[in-house]
Amino acid sequence: MKYSSKVQRCFQSPMRKFHPYAVAAAAAGKTIYHLNIGQPDVETPPAFFEAIRKFHQPVLAYAPSPGLPELIDAIVRYYKKIGVSITADDVLITTGGSEALQFVCNCILDDGDEIILAEPFYSNYNTFISSTGASIHPLHTSPADGYFYADRAKIEAAINPHTRAILITNPGNPTGTVLTRDEMQMILEICVQHDLFLIADEVYREFVYSDEPLASFAQLPGGEEHVVLIDSVSKRFSACGARVGCIVSRNRELMAQALKYCQARLSVATLDQIAAAALYSVGPEYFEAVRAEYKRRRDTVVRKLAGIPGVVCQCPKGAFYLMAALPIDDAEKFQRWLLEEFDDNGDTVMFAAGGGFYQSRERGRNEIRIAYVKEQHALERAMDLLALGIQQYNETH
Amino acid sequence: MKYSSKVQRCFQSPMRKFHPYAVAAAAAGKTIYHLNIGQPDVETPPAFFEAIRKFHQPVLAYAPSPGLPELIDAIVRYYKKIGVSITADDVLITTGGSEALQFVCNCILDDGDEIILAEPFYSNYNTFISSTGASIHPLHTSPADGYFYADRAKIEAAINPHTRAILITNPGNPTGTVLTRDEMQMILEICVQHDLFLIADEVYREFVYSDEPLASFAQLPGGEEHVVLIDSVSKRFSACGARVGCIVSRNRELMAQALKYCQARLSVATLDQIAAAALYSVGPEYFEAVRAEYKRRRDTVVRKLAGIPGVVCQCPKGAFYLMAALPIDDAEKFQRWLLEEFDDNGDTVMFAAGGGFYQSRERGRNEIRIAYVKEQHALERAMDLLALGIQQYNETH
Repeated sequence: MKYSSKVQRCFQSPMRKFHPYAVAAAAAGKTIYHLNIGQPDVETPPAFFEAIRKFHQPVLAYAPSPGLPELIDAIVRYYKKIGVSITADDVLITTGGSEALQFVCNCILDDGDEIILAEPFYSNYNTFISSTGASIHPLHTSPADGYFYADRAKIEAAINPHTRAILITNPGNPTGTVLTRDEMQMILEICVQHDLFLIADEVYREFVYSDEPLASFAQLPGGEEHVVLIDSVSKRFSACGARVGCIVSRNRELMAQALKYCQARLSVATLDQIAAAALYSVGPEYFEAVRAEYKRRRDTVVRKLAGIPGVVCQCPKGAFYLMAALPIDDAEKFQRWLLEEFDDNGDTVMFAAGGGFYQSRERGRNEIRIAYVKEQHALERAMDLLALGIQQYNETH
Repeated sequence: MKYSSKVQRCFQSPMRKFHPYAVAAAAAGKTIYHLNIGQPDVETPPAFFEAIRKFHQPVLAYAPSPGLPELIDAIVRYYKKIGVSITADDVLITTGGSEALQFVCNCILDDGDEIILAEPFYSNYNTFISSTGASIHPLHTSPADGYFYADRAKIEAAINPHTRAILITNPGNPTGTVLTRDEMQMILEICVQHDLFLIADEVYREFVYSDEPLASFAQLPGGEEHVVLIDSVSKRFSACGARVGCIVSRNRELMAQALKYCQARLSVATLDQIAAAALYSVGPEYFEAVRAEYKRRRDTVVRKLAGIPGVVCQCPKGAFYLMAALPIDDAEKFQRWLLEEFDDNGDTVMFAAGGGFYQSRERGRNEIRIAYVKEQHALERAMDLLALGIQQYNETH
């Protein structure tokens, strides 16, 4: 029995690759400080759980395939507040941002097609894109210039007759880079000129640490038919386990095509949708508090990294990740050594090795992604462990 | 901007095709008796809601990608009770049976591949299969012999070098057909001989109306590597809105490939998994009561159909659907007429037109699927409306 060519081009998650070593280290009594997984520690707003406890229908029925109307309405109102005018027809509820991406890829990509994407990128994109038979055309970046990719000439040079879309994660995972409004407008113009979709994964939209208003590609004038937003409640409301996302687009044909996939999988979890609608009732003070907390953490991580000789890292402007190049030979070897050989008073640290976020082999080899989703004290300890680990590793290798 | 060749081979749901006419009929004051959607009216066991109300963690975190261990354990115990010995590694939790099917199709199907499937079939299979670039090779059946397909010569004649799998829905949707153990063994032997996967969609397993023990392809000796079960809590526990299913297979390579897709979409809804685990604590008396209720309904529908001149229908043995050929020219025209032109004291009836369950054009044109998921009184009224509708339609057409 054979397996498909597509699944063979997919990989296991780089974030989970070191799971067996972590299990062994924990079994050996080590305490592991996890900076490897983007699971926020911020509390889920109680409105979520209250809405679920209030559900008293006797039968847990399918929700409508495009999504529960009350959730769609809540999303339309949320977008209105940030200056994006959409109607209920412009929203399809999905099982997390993951399903939104998967549906959009399936709608527009065929064998041999290409999608332009700055690397390093969120590694699961590779699975969604490879499963359609298409491939990623990477835009190269470097740690020294903060993983900058918003350059017109660089982007246009990547376009060829196979190109179908530019996929932008803004704010970025794994790099934390945030585009300026001018850069966003420039990328949208390229998409309009070259007749490409602009898929904007904006699930980290609220996590920006300047005082500018929240940016969305859907706010920009022109090119409404080209813009497809991927959105989710997971990070926004620290509700990762809810699996509620959406596709937002004013392109009616795209939405009609995507609806076929929504219908085929019947519906998104009913209770999670009811609870997600309640999440959108939290006020701006919730986001302000969360933003202030993440900003403090980012500053801690950047300050600590600046104190480690040889580390290359620019201060990121958003999300809750950053990438850094370390003064080591190989981040995967280093990670394994940290789990198997190293400890400081029984403690060690885990990050995500950078190579897994790259399409190009041999790139990102000495880089790591840090998710700063721990409280201040744990974060400081984790960064001290990283500094100590780098020093000892280089003394012994 | 172009759309993929794959999405263009997918169709909107035949069950939902007449939704606009139904909305108009309801707006005109008609009461519609719905026999078109497989949404059971049976109460979801309270254990589901109790488990969710007991959740008191402050952060709703991602569940592990392969599934929540407590749910996997509950499923392993459930299978043990029906004589299937599996371990936790043989189970991957999915977002409904739909995602299970989608992952399995993506793992094994490439462009140009074929999958053998008796028609009429659950129409969403077409979307999952077409999205991989593969296609359905249909086995023809007929209403007069109860949609029988379990014939060795007929199945073997459909096998060619492109064939990758035989997909069996047992008990069947839309037909309600149930295989005998000998027929199941014969189909498994064919798969072993021809090196094919046997994908068994057994989500209706508990809904069989003979007194034989519950059958699963995973109970059969030989061919463990070939059998892949698709399972779900939706119908079993009348919890369609929960979106919790699973892949069950002892084929380790298949499970390793499918795990890539599980990781890419991160996890299945956490609360739904906790609650689904609690569902598996309901005792056999729950299923006995539900089975008795559905059997009564099936008998009602079959008795009523037998009273309508010209209807062709064999008594189905399982699930909560049946297909029947009506003495009319075209079920879609008839359905639209029922919604737009017909009423009896303000009442009309809706079913799913048969054509949408067929791959072969022009087949199933005068057939309908009835989902008997209404209580006895509504079901009797719905069937009387159908009889009256057929009579009046034929008088005026």
